[in-house]
Amino acid sequence: MWKIGLIGCGNVGLGLLRILEAKKESLRERYGFTFTVTGVVDPFRGSVGNEEGLDLKALLEAADAKASLDGLGEAIDLDWLLQGRADVIVEATPTNLHDGMPGLGHIRRALEAGCHVVSTNKGPVSLALPELEALARSKGVQYRIEGVLLSGTPAINLAQEALAGCDILSVQGIVNGTTNFILTRMEEGADYQAALSEAQELGYAETDPTADVEGWDAAVKAQVMANVFLGEALTVSDVDRQGITHLKPADIEAARSRGRRVKLIAKVERSGGAVRATVTPTELPLDHPLAGVSGAVNALTYETDHLGEVTIIGPGAGRVETGQALLVDLLALNRH
Amino acid sequence: MWKIGLIGCGNVGLGLLRILEAKKESLRERYGFTFTVTGVVDPFRGSVGNEEGLDLKALLEAADAKASLDGLGEAIDLDWLLQGRADVIVEATPTNLHDGMPGLGHIRRALEAGCHVVSTNKGPVSLALPELEALARSKGVQYRIEGVLLSGTPAINLAQEALAGCDILSVQGIVNGTTNFILTRMEEGADYQAALSEAQELGYAETDPTADVEGWDAAVKAQVMANVFLGEALTVSDVDRQGITHLKPADIEAARSRGRRVKLIAKVERSGGAVRATVTPTELPLDHPLAGVSGAVNALTYETDHLGEVTIIGPGAGRVETGQALLVDLLALNRH
Repeated sequence: MWKIGLIGCGNVGLGLLRILEAKKESLRERYGFTFTVTGVVDPFRGSVGNEEGLDLKALLEAADAKASLDGLGEAIDLDWLLQGRADVIVEATPTNLHDGMPGLGHIRRALEAGCHVVSTNKGPVSLALPELEALARSKGVQYRIEGVLLSGTPAINLAQEALAGCDILSVQGIVNGTTNFILTRMEEGADYQAALSEAQELGYAETDPTADVEGWDAAVKAQVMANVFLGEALTVSDVDRQGITHLKPADIEAARSRGRRVKLIAKVERSGGAVRATVTPTELPLDHPLAGVSGAVNALTYETDHLGEVTIIGPGAGRVETGQALLVDLLALNRH
Repeated sequence: MWKIGLIGCGNVGLGLLRILEAKKESLRERYGFTFTVTGVVDPFRGSVGNEEGLDLKALLEAADAKASLDGLGEAIDLDWLLQGRADVIVEATPTNLHDGMPGLGHIRRALEAGCHVVSTNKGPVSLALPELEALARSKGVQYRIEGVLLSGTPAINLAQEALAGCDILSVQGIVNGTTNFILTRMEEGADYQAALSEAQELGYAETDPTADVEGWDAAVKAQVMANVFLGEALTVSDVDRQGITHLKPADIEAARSRGRRVKLIAKVERSGGAVRATVTPTELPLDHPLAGVSGAVNALTYETDHLGEVTIIGPGAGRVETGQALLVDLLALNRH
């Protein structure tokens, strides 16, 4: 019986709770996974706990009604959970790429206390992945981050289990849906500004799109790829990064006239003993598996010793999807 | 320490032994997987065993020199292995789709004796998958068949672990490299006979190509997909099957004029309470992830509740690849 503590009860955290509540029976039958959620900590919705397990149905009803969670359990904080009341902390507070807080603090404290951590938070990953992985190892627990890379598309679990036994030589892919949507629209004739505005209207791009269009988001993911797939403790500043803001319709058209398509590709590879990580607009031949990946879809191609190239394609964003990424990590903890 | 017995020492079995010998150290370090190969049973190369473990290097050298294995251990048979000298039987004898023998007999006896079975043999799967799965369950062991579906591309392990927690609603894909190669060449202008001859020259197609071009091989895989992904105990005769022999260049061209591409698609889906399995030449829009899969590559698209569509693309044949499929199943046994 896993005791789960959830820190950050926004759309992603609630997405996980909804899946856990809806699939409680099938998770037990199919995977032998049983759980209680002993506490939820959120500065806006409220922080409540119950050593016997919170009533998830009541909690989700309160969240749907945008009501406070107060009264659904005793008032708690993270420390309450870390005093033996959680085996795993699900960290799902908002991403902060500047200093990683508050998520980084939560994750450090949880690992330090001997709890597993499952997290979708890119800030701590970008700033402190090698430190956090070492801390987890020293405590005999795991820090799992499936949702950080391709949202729900299980790129990390694929590499760790379904590709187990292979050596991964390089990994490249489309890891940012916003820029891929913009490039797809530019190929259809829009100019950069019009494509960006459309992405913003559809909710794919933020009001300040810098993190996406300058390649920062992709660079964090390249860093994760280097760490997780090639075992190299890179930081985000080690990533050679170029965004898409300089691309003109003429560049897209010139590639097309050569039978090629421009994609923003994040790539990590071993090269002369070192690991090189790049984010660059790249012309791909049309028959490359990544060339056909359009819109807000993400994809990664792994080059392996035993299998040559293996590609996974799937959704790159979404609330249910990110909740699923947290679930797949919880189920992986349950297997190991 | 896993005690492994290998039945059938052809290219696939040797492919596994080569990987095991080459990666012995890294398998222990990365996955905590340790093993000895206690016996090898093969009617042509010889059948030898050693309770302390065979010398794999000597065994591979003899195989490379096309020499007999006799003398590399004591003379044994399957029964010797099943008397407590193997935890897992790797069954890699040649496929026989008519009565499944000798593989079906080996697998029944191994499961009956309480050994796990890892196998790439399509005959027993086609004829007796529900029976063998029930037998394995009743004995508390596993019958794992990753290599049967997409050779080394880990479609089954992906669904069981990386997509854990999702409900799989349907699965469709390109599961036969020979027909996909022929269709790719026909799209480039060859007629059916010329494309088939080329596939035969390159070793993709057998001298008697019926199993591939009439869709029988794909139908066995559709049956596996129904059993493994949708939990429905179909037999191969339940699969609605149509091959590619009737296709004319004009059909391919007509599809192309509509912006579509013809692929031989194996599909399983829930439909009104039942599971429907089909193998049919299908016109796909060019932006479908499966439309870009050309030549001898295989691919599957899973439609799931939490993630929508997830696609995996990878090699559909090859000796190293199939050895890797056996390895990934051995490593999965080691995790569970």
